[in-house]
Parts: sequence; C-alpha cells; structure tokens
Amino acid sequence: MKALQYVKVGAPPEVREVPLPEPGPGQVRLRVTAAGACHSDSFVMSLPEEQYRAGYPLPMTLGHEGAGIVDKLGEGATGVEVGDSVAVYGPWGCGRCIQCAQGKENYCERAAELGITPPGLGHDGSMAEYMVVDDPRFLVPLGDLDPAGNVALTDAGLTPYHAIKGSLGKLGPGSTAVVIGAGGLGHVAIQLLRTLTTATVIALDVSDDKLELAKEVGAHFAFPSTPEAKDRIAEAIGTPSVTAIFDFVAAEPTLELGSALRGTESDLVVVGVGGGQVGAGILAAPYDATVRAPYWGSRPELMEVFALARSGHIRVETETFHLNDAAEAYHRLHEGTLRGRAVVTP
Amino acid sequence: MKALQYVKVGAPPEVREVPLPEPGPGQVRLRVTAAGACHSDSFVMSLPEEQYRAGYPLPMTLGHEGAGIVDKLGEGATGVEVGDSVAVYGPWGCGRCIQCAQGKENYCERAAELGITPPGLGHDGSMAEYMVVDDPRFLVPLGDLDPAGNVALTDAGLTPYHAIKGSLGKLGPGSTAVVIGAGGLGHVAIQLLRTLTTATVIALDVSDDKLELAKEVGAHFAFPSTPEAKDRIAEAIGTPSVTAIFDFVAAEPTLELGSALRGTESDLVVVGVGGGQVGAGILAAPYDATVRAPYWGSRPELMEVFALARSGHIRVETETFHLNDAAEAYHRLHEGTLRGRAVVTP
Amino acid sequence: MKALQYVKVGAPPEVREVPLPEPGPGQVRLRVTAAGACHSDSFVMSLPEEQYRAGYPLPMTLGHEGAGIVDKLGEGATGVEVGDSVAVYGPWGCGRCIQCAQGKENYCERAAELGITPPGLGHDGSMAEYMVVDDPRFLVPLGDLDPAGNVALTDAGLTPYHAIKGSLGKLGPGSTAVVIGAGGLGHVAIQLLRTLTTATVIALDVSDDKLELAKEVGAHFAFPSTPEAKDRIAEAIGTPSVTAIFDFVAAEPTLELGSALRGTESDLVVVGVGGGQVGAGILAAPYDATVRAPYWGSRPELMEVFALARSGHIRVETETFHLNDAAEAYHRLHEGTLRGRAVVTP
Amino acid sequence: MKALQYVKVGAPPEVREVPLPEPGPGQVRLRVTAAGACHSDSFVMSLPEEQYRAGYPLPMTLGHEGAGIVDKLGEGATGVEVGDSVAVYGPWGCGRCIQCAQGKENYCERAAELGITPPGLGHDGSMAEYMVVDDPRFLVPLGDLDPAGNVALTDAGLTPYHAIKGSLGKLGPGSTAVVIGAGGLGHVAIQLLRTLTTATVIALDVSDDKLELAKEVGAHFAFPSTPEAKDRIAEAIGTPSVTAIFDFVAAEPTLELGSALRGTESDLVVVGVGGGQVGAGILAAPYDATVRAPYWGSRPELMEVFALARSGHIRVETETFHLNDAAEAYHRLHEGTLRGRAVVTP
Repeated sequence: MKALQYVKVGAPPEVREVPLPEPGPGQVRLRVTAAGACHSDSFVMSLPEEQYRAGYPLPMTLGHEGAGIVDKLGEGATGVEVGDSVAVYGPWGCGRCIQCAQGKENYCERAAELGITPPGLGHDGSMAEYMVVDDPRFLVPLGDLDPAGNVALTDAGLTPYHAIKGSLGKLGPGSTAVVIGAGGLGHVAIQLLRTLTTATVIALDVSDDKLELAKEVGAHFAFPSTPEAKDRIAEAIGTPSVTAIFDFVAAEPTLELGSALRGTESDLVVVGVGGGQVGAGILAAPYDATVRAPYWGSRPELMEVFALARSGHIRVETETFHLNDAAEAYHRLHEGTLRGRAVVTP
Repeated sequence: MKALQYVKVGAPPEVREVPLPEPGPGQVRLRVTAAGACHSDSFVMSLPEEQYRAGYPLPMTLGHEGAGIVDKLGEGATGVEVGDSVAVYGPWGCGRCIQCAQGKENYCERAAELGITPPGLGHDGSMAEYMVVDDPRFLVPLGDLDPAGNVALTDAGLTPYHAIKGSLGKLGPGSTAVVIGAGGLGHVAIQLLRTLTTATVIALDVSDDKLELAKEVGAHFAFPSTPEAKDRIAEAIGTPSVTAIFDFVAAEPTLELGSALRGTESDLVVVGVGGGQVGAGILAAPYDATVRAPYWGSRPELMEVFALARSGHIRVETETFHLNDAAEAYHRLHEGTLRGRAVVTP
Repeated sequence: MKALQYVKVGAPPEVREVPLPEPGPGQVRLRVTAAGACHSDSFVMSLPEEQYRAGYPLPMTLGHEGAGIVDKLGEGATGVEVGDSVAVYGPWGCGRCIQCAQGKENYCERAAELGITPPGLGHDGSMAEYMVVDDPRFLVPLGDLDPAGNVALTDAGLTPYHAIKGSLGKLGPGSTAVVIGAGGLGHVAIQLLRTLTTATVIALDVSDDKLELAKEVGAHFAFPSTPEAKDRIAEAIGTPSVTAIFDFVAAEPTLELGSALRGTESDLVVVGVGGGQVGAGILAAPYDATVRAPYWGSRPELMEVFALARSGHIRVETETFHLNDAAEAYHRLHEGTLRGRAVVTP
Repeated sequence: MKALQYVKVGAPPEVREVPLPEPGPGQVRLRVTAAGACHSDSFVMSLPEEQYRAGYPLPMTLGHEGAGIVDKLGEGATGVEVGDSVAVYGPWGCGRCIQCAQGKENYCERAAELGITPPGLGHDGSMAEYMVVDDPRFLVPLGDLDPAGNVALTDAGLTPYHAIKGSLGKLGPGSTAVVIGAGGLGHVAIQLLRTLTTATVIALDVSDDKLELAKEVGAHFAFPSTPEAKDRIAEAIGTPSVTAIFDFVAAEPTLELGSALRGTESDLVVVGVGGGQVGAGILAAPYDATVRAPYWGSRPELMEVFALARSGHIRVETETFHLNDAAEAYHRLHEGTLRGRAVVTP
C-alpha cells in the first residue's frame, strides 16, 4: 500500500510503497478515508537528529488525524464492526491509570514510561491507505458525517474544544475572548466560542485572508496581530483587558501580546508549540490571571465535538489533497496559505 | 470449585460444587480472595419470580463485591499480570458510550440494551473460589491492601463516595450532613464526610449498636432515627435544617424524616433501595432543595476510594465468614446485627 | 400619585390616589418607568384571608418587576445618581448573611425572620408612579436599554436564567432540554437555552399561539403539552428521555409529564408555583435524576441577564398597558392570551 | 487616641497621638481590640518615594487586619449594633459592580478608578485605639471568638483560604500539596489543606523553627527549601511532581523550585509579593500546568474562614505585642523570628 513517510531526519517526507499492516490481538485495521495535516507534524520534522531519535523510529508514516472504515479486527477486538465509519482518537494512553479511566488519555500518567505515542507521532499514522489502531476504544463512530470534511475535528476540533472547555466557567455574559491565529485550529476555536459561550469574540492574525475567514466563521472583530491590537480592542469593547486569550501561535510576540491583554481572573491559554516566558505573581500580572498550556483533549470531549458537528454548530474549512500530493499540503501549511485545514485522501 | 449460588426463586442460596470457569478472549480469571455481602443481594432474592426472571438466569453465583489474585488471562487480555492482587469494579458498562468513556460505567447508556449486568447481579459473581471478569479495565490494583479488609470498598465505599462527591460543593465550612443508617455503607459515609468535608456530621439509626459505631467512626452526633430526631438536631446545631441528607435506608419513614430536615439549597440523596415519594416544587420543599438517587460509582472514583484507604483516611468495619457459612452472613445482614460489613472468604 | 393596589382580600386590585412616598435614610425613590405583571401576583391575590394576612399588610401596591429613574436619594444613599435609569432587583435580603454576601439575596438566611419581602409581595411595589427601594444595591443600571422592553427581565428573565444556570453543566453537546409553558418566563427560557447551551430545545404548551411563539424565539420543536408529548419527543430526537426539563407551569399534569421524560442524571427543574409529588429513589426514578425548585435569582445573575439583553442574545416579547388599564393586564394574564409578558407604564 | 503611623517615606513607623475619628454617614467606628502585622505593610514601607506617593497619603495609620467592638454608628449605618464584636474585611470594593455583587470585593472592577483602598494600605487602618470602617458590610461577627487569637484570619487566614479554594477541585484523594514558607500565612495554609483536602501536605522553609511549626500544625513532611527539596519530595512520595504548589514567599528561588515541582494539570499558586517569570507553553511546562496569583479573598470566604475557626478546624499561632511595641512586631517579622503571626493590641 502507499504511505507518506518521514524517512530521514531533515529530508522531506516521501510517498512510498509499504506492506499492508496486520492487526494484532485487540487491534483494528482501518481502510483510511481521510487524514489531516498539522503544524505539529512539521514541528516534529524540524527537530534536529539528536532530539528526534529519542522517541521516534524512522521511517514513520505521518498523520495523527485519521478516519477510516473498519477493515479487519484483530483477535478479541470488540465493540466495532467491519464496515463502520470511524474517526481515530489520537492521544493514546495506557487505558488503566486514573486519567485514562476518565477518558483523559491525553494526560495518561504512564504513556511516556510505556513508550505509548499517538499514531503519526512516534509510530505509523493515517497518511496511508490503511492504518492499524491499538484498541477499539480509540475509534469514535462517524455515522453519516463526511470523513474528509470532519477528520480534522480529531485534532483541529478537539484541541480548541478542550482548551475552551477549561475556561467556560469564566466566559459568561459580558465576557470577551481573543483568538490569536485564525488557521486550522483557530477558525474552529472561533466557532466553538460563538456556540458554547456568549462572549464577544475577537480574532487576531497576521494574514488578511485569515482575518477574513475569522469574520466569516463568526468573530465579532478581527484585527491584525500587532502590538497595536491592544488599542484596537480597547476601542472596540471599551477596555483593553479581556477574559480569555487562546494563543494558537504561541511565538514570543503573540505570547507577549496575549500577556498584555490579560485582565483580573483572566485565562491565557497557550495552545501553539512555542514556549516563551510569562510574568507571574501579583506584581507581574493582574490578580488571579491564569496561564496554562493544555494538550489535545479527552475521549469524551472528542465525542462532544462530533456531536457539535452533527448538530451543525461547527464546520471545518478544509482543502483536500490526494495522498500523492500530501507533500504539497505540508508546503502550503508551512507557507500559511491554507484556508482552514489540509486534508489528505488516499 | 465451590460457589454460593442462588438456585431457585424464593429459596435460600446454597453452597454448591460447580465447574472452574475458563476466561474467554479479553477476559481475566481471578482466584477470589474476598467477597462482600450486600443488602442488594437480599433485595434481589426477595423479588417474586415474574420480576426476577426478567434479567437474571439461575443458578447464579452471588457477590458483587469481589477481590482476587489474577489467575489466568484470556487471549488478548492485557494490562494485568498473573499474581496481581486486585479488586473488581462492579457496575460494568459497554466501555464505548460517552458515559463509559468517562469511566461512568454505572451510568452506561447501553448496558440495559446489551444485557450487561454486574457480577453477582445477573451473572456469576464473587462468592466462589474463582470468578471471571469481562475486561481488565474492571480490575483495580489492591497492592498491599488486605483483600478481606478492603473488598467492601467496591460497593460499601464506592457508593457513599459517589453520593457524597455529588454534594461536596455544598458541604463547605459551617454545613451539616445527616447520615440515615449507620450500617455497611453508612459507617463508611460518616468517615468520608469527616475526611472530605468540614461539615458537622449527624448519624441517625434505629439500633443503639450502630449509633455507637457511628460515633466511633467520627459522627459528631448520633440520634435514634425517629420523628423526634428533628428536635434533637435543632438542639444540637441550633437549626432543624441541614445541608445534606444521605439516606441509606430509604424506607418511607426515613424518606419522610429526611424530607423534613431539608433546608434551602439542601441535597436529599436517596441511596437505599426504597422508593417513596417526596414533595417537590416551591410550595412543597425549601427553595432549591434537591432530591436525587445516585447509583454505585465510577471507575476513577473507585480508584480514589482505594487511595483514601491507602492513606488511612477510611477503614471498613468488617465481620468475616467462611464461604461455607456465607448464608449466615446474609442472615446476620437481614437481622441488622452486623457491625459494619460482612465479608466472605473462600 | 396613582398606584395599582390590592385593597381587600379576594377583591380585584384598584388604581388609587396615594401619597408620594419619601425615601428614608439609605433608601432611593424612583420615578417608575415600567412595571411587569406576573402570575405570582395573581397567585398571592388568590390566597384566602387566613393565609394572606400572615405576611402582607393591605392595601399594598402591586408589582415586583420594576424600572425607573432615580428621583431622590435618602440620607447616606450612595452609588447611584439622580437621573440614572435603573431596574430593581426584587428578592431583597438582609445584605449581611453568607448568602447575601454572595449576592444570593433570593436565598437570604434571615429575610423571613426579619420580615423582609420583595416589593409588590409584602410591601409597596412598582405599579405606581413612584416607588421607594430600600438600598442602592438593589438597583441595576439600565443604561440605554428601553425600560418597558426590559423591565420583565428582572423576573421573567432572571428566574429562568437562574434555573437554567443550575443545569448548565449537564447541557453539553448532544443534550436535550424541554421547556413546559412558553409564556412570560418560558419564552425567555427558550432563548436562554439556545444562547447558553448547544442543547436541542423542545417546547410544550397547551396553546397553539404559544407553541408558535416558542418556535419564533428558537425552539427546535414545539408540541402540545399532552401525555402524547413523550412519543412526539421520542420521534423527534430518537429517545423519550431528555437531559433537563424546566416546568414553568408545575401543575400536576405537567409535573407528571416532566417526571416521565427524565433520563439518567437528568434535571427536573420546577419553576411554577404548583407543588405536587414526584417519585424519588432508585426504583422510582432514573439513576441520579435530580428534582429541584429554584426561586428567582441572584444579584450578579441579574447583571448577567442584562448583559445578554445588551448583546442582543435575548429579547422579551411584551404587551404594554397603561397603569390605568393594569387590571386588564392581569385579566389577560389569567386568560392565558398574552403574547410574552404584560408591562405596565405609568 | 494612639495610633501607629507611617509618617515619612523610608522612616520607621511611629506611635503618635491623633484625633479620635468620627464615623460619617453609613460608616461605623470600632474600638479596636486587635490588629495584625503583615509582610505587605513592610513591603509598602519599603517602596521608594515616587512609587509610594502614587496612592498613599501620609501620615497613615498602619494595619489591614483589624478587629474591634462597634463603638458608634454613622447616620444610616445599619446591620450592626453598638457593642458587637467584629472583624474587618479588608479588600474594600465599590459594592456595586458584578464582582462586588458576588462578595468578591478583592477583585472589584472599580476600586482603582474610584481610589478605594484597604484600611492600612492607603488610608488609616487598625493599628490604633479606634478605627472607622466605610460600610457595615465589611464587618463580620466574631461572636465568642477571641479577637487577638483570630484577627489574623482576616488576611493570614483568608488569603491562603482563597488560594487553596481555587485548587480544591484538583486536590482529591492521592494528591500532594506543597506549601513554600511556613510563616504567618503558610502555617494556616497547612491546616487548611489538612482539613479541606485529603492531600499529602509538604512544607518547605529555610528556617528550622518554621519547619518544626509546620509539622506541629499538620504537615506530613517538612523539608529545607533548597533545590534538593525536589529529591527529598521524590523520596517521600515516590515522584518529584506534585498536584499544587502554594508559594507564600515568591522570591526567584522559590518560584524556580515551585516551577520544577509542577506535574501535569498542576497548580502553581503564587501568593507572596515577589514577581518573577515562569516558563509557559507546552515545551516549557507540563501539560495544562497552571500558574496564577490570587489576591486576598472574598467576603463570603472570610465568613467561611471564621466558621472553620469556630468549629476548631484551624487556629492561628500568634505572638501578641502592645500597641506601644508595634514597631518591635514589624522588626521581628522582618527578621523572620516570629512563630506564626504578630498581633498588636491597644
């Protein structure tokens, strides 16, 4: 079968012919219907050899957003049937610690120790004609939902959903939420904020196209992501301080801007893979302003995200590429010229 | 092997010789180390034939509280090792619905439809030398905890823990909690309330021995469970209205007493298997007084209960019986003369 | 000045000429701009003499929904200025107990003992040219909001808001909410559910006009409030069990219907002034199904309700009557022929 | 009357004779029974002239922890009686914004704009024979509680209570909490953690005396606050990562140590007045590790703190000084040789 693989550290990924994988006991094989391309793939491929070697054997099939049709059940695998259309929950855990028992496998206490990684981020992922999933519990029924249109919800939907859910208690009537970065995750975040809260939603981005998209999907305001954004916000809502900031870029300048927008009891939620410093303590930040960096989301949260897609509350903007052209998808992602999310179909 | 079985509707259970069960794919066989006897077993055995037939094929080995040593793994069963000392999480679910994904298998959306029942309440349970468990996720590590001393936590600990957890937000400083029935579940509830909250804890029971036990395990006050209890409470705490009432009996008189003790925004939590009526609405109950009847508890909650046992915060009072004398355990339970919980060891 | 007063138990209220009231120390006098008419006024006027006498001296000016322009400040009254347009928070409390300290004056621990009542429900209310308010903290700024269009939010908005807020945690993606009674409070409840949650919203009412209104303000489905409603709901959403039921009628038949719609962990929220019995306990209700009867709402909640009005998330449907015709407003209310809420202007 | 005043920037405070203050409309005068000395007083007195001038006119009577007997009511002041023994809630707010409406006057939206400051931190405080309080709502009844023994709860109790309350949801069974700094606030924090949670509590301090005190008031472990503390903790509890860290010092080294102890979903709560930087984002901190810096506490929280004192759950260790020796109290505080909190009595 064909698969898009990362073969050599530093080199671009290649479409290669690889053997069809067999599901072991308890595993499930999917015929892939769609796979999503994500900044974290590029981030991982940008790591130097020393760092990369640590956890990720090569060659490795890319893709941590995946959907497929159940194709073959390994021995003892139950709960799904051949022919089911499913999406893959990506942040696999041990299944038995107290975090996994709550479905929070993204925060599994033992995954690192046991060498468990998400598909496409340590072992073969979804950018292939077939993929093997370790346990039926990682498969969420898609039903009638279109796989290509919805596969990105497994990360680009779930990650902002989890990030926003942690701040819902603060986003009551009269609140304001800022989304920095209106790309793959950010444009879903805007929709989620509009549908889950009554907050005024403000999008910040460096690209005019993305600011346009932000407004189309529901942002009340969309401003260039520059230091002047603070003044524009103050002008728009009457105060430069907001209730929550979701930073999907998390580079130094956005983190600095996000920090400057914080009000009393605000949340600064760092979702991107940047990693700067923020001021902490009573003299460096407003009272009880919180900073946190959530990661992906839980199994029940993924079910909730699909429920929102089913009821029409959210919709991912996608551009579709054939598996043979998957490298182009990553190129466009890197350039920042995608509208929404890139989806690859075999 | 030997097993205590319910053989014929209306007849007392019998110790019988039955074949050693084999674990199927994904299942686990335990060599039982301890099993707990519970009012719900008696309740089920008291049902007339018509009702009973519905869900429960006979003969059936009793026991929904169980602990054991992992003895044999069915094909594809992973996550536990032969020799592990474990306790059994009882309210099994489908494992895949949104409730099960959160570990709330006690509220599984599909268990009824799929005919899934707890061990000992529909299919063979723990009152035997060996038992088979459907999935490794139902096994919680006991480690060094003594099985006979702690097996009862799987119901007599988990059920009050779940019931109390739902009211924790109300049981802040200055609050008052009433426990009706200081038996197997109630005497753990008292300890849980003392350790999880700063509430004043009042126990009500019809038996002097149980009121004595209640005080020993931490109740601030213990009064006879009569209509006069309301006055005794008023005298003790300065008001007849309390913050939360946990009724582990739930017969008409206790439900009536519990209703009469409700204050504004109070919780009346019905845990026993009685099922009366309570007044509802602004004219029939104090403002925002809540009534609910939770059932058993979730998988992560069971882990929390064992964490509390491990740190010495709670301890089950038990009387131990040999499997051959298990009928006696149920007899004493029915009489109300047990101190704490009856545990059966093979 | 003119005032609509309840003069004699059992007799209809009358418009009378009464002295202009003077604000005492700490009090504020308003020139009334609008007052709302409510079922609870009728309910109070329907009480027989014995019951009535208890708390309510006559004659009494009606009206517990009020808005006005600050007209005169009593000595030491601060925080508002003459000329401010304000709405009146109705469920006054002592201001010093732990409930009042949180703004939950609707659940004041000492109001009954101190004889504190809401305006129009125990002492003179808003159905007059002027009214006196005991403390500036009961006045919420209206700003540019139209008094006649928004005065009803002080009860018809606040009461459903408080009721729904207590169930928000359950009304996540995939949930269903039923509103029984699409009148003054119910038609706001529908809007609140649509804007605060992603639940499917179903309205039940006996009147075709109100079912029509329910759909106009956002109900996904609207069915006659008959025992068959359960089947209609099952047909519409695939299951007869819902996540939350808000009963704004709370008569025996609606309470029975609401009880029958309860699912596992559901909320039955009784808002109307009926007061029946509901089944409680594991055998009488689904697992952890909750029943409660909240009352009115808190001060900060009223501010949140006005924030929602200001951002356009909710709008009260109103019919306006002159103070001279206020009796007609109550007549239409009693008949059930009002569309939304009746508002009286002096 | 006598008062301890800060007279000249940079000079030590002096006991001076000043006029007896008169309560204005709505105000209350107390005959002070006890006042607490706090690091924040020293911090404020350490500010250079430019910074100091901004908000604080001199001379100013020190003391933001105060208790007294109601001595005289200003016009229109209600809700307390002459002779009542009360404690003073310190973080005064406007009383009308949505934060104040919830009793969260510590986070008042308008205090800065309106120039409202706590007593002793901007206008005359409690280190005097008499003090004037702006509104009766700032007075919490002490009843039989000893003023000198409990006055410190208004800050040294309330501040850790508010800090811990924000993390209660995480501090379930099996959790671990670290308290850095076992002084005035820290030794109350340890007691609060022991009584409000089932967490393992670890105290870190540079002083042996304070580590001793930490153990006396309930810490399970007490280690020197050095970089090696991480290893000591790992040895004690089996992992170097903890659930919550409360840093009552918040100097660079403690903030660094606290950051290093963070686990997944942990809380780093910065209470001291230091103000360093902490790493944020997925690459710089464990998943969803939260940093926040709460400030003081709310009115209802202060009532809860006194409820805990009344029920014997917490007790402040105090050393008492006469008003004439108040400077000595600050000296000992600065030296770090106090056991618990310094209290000044007139």
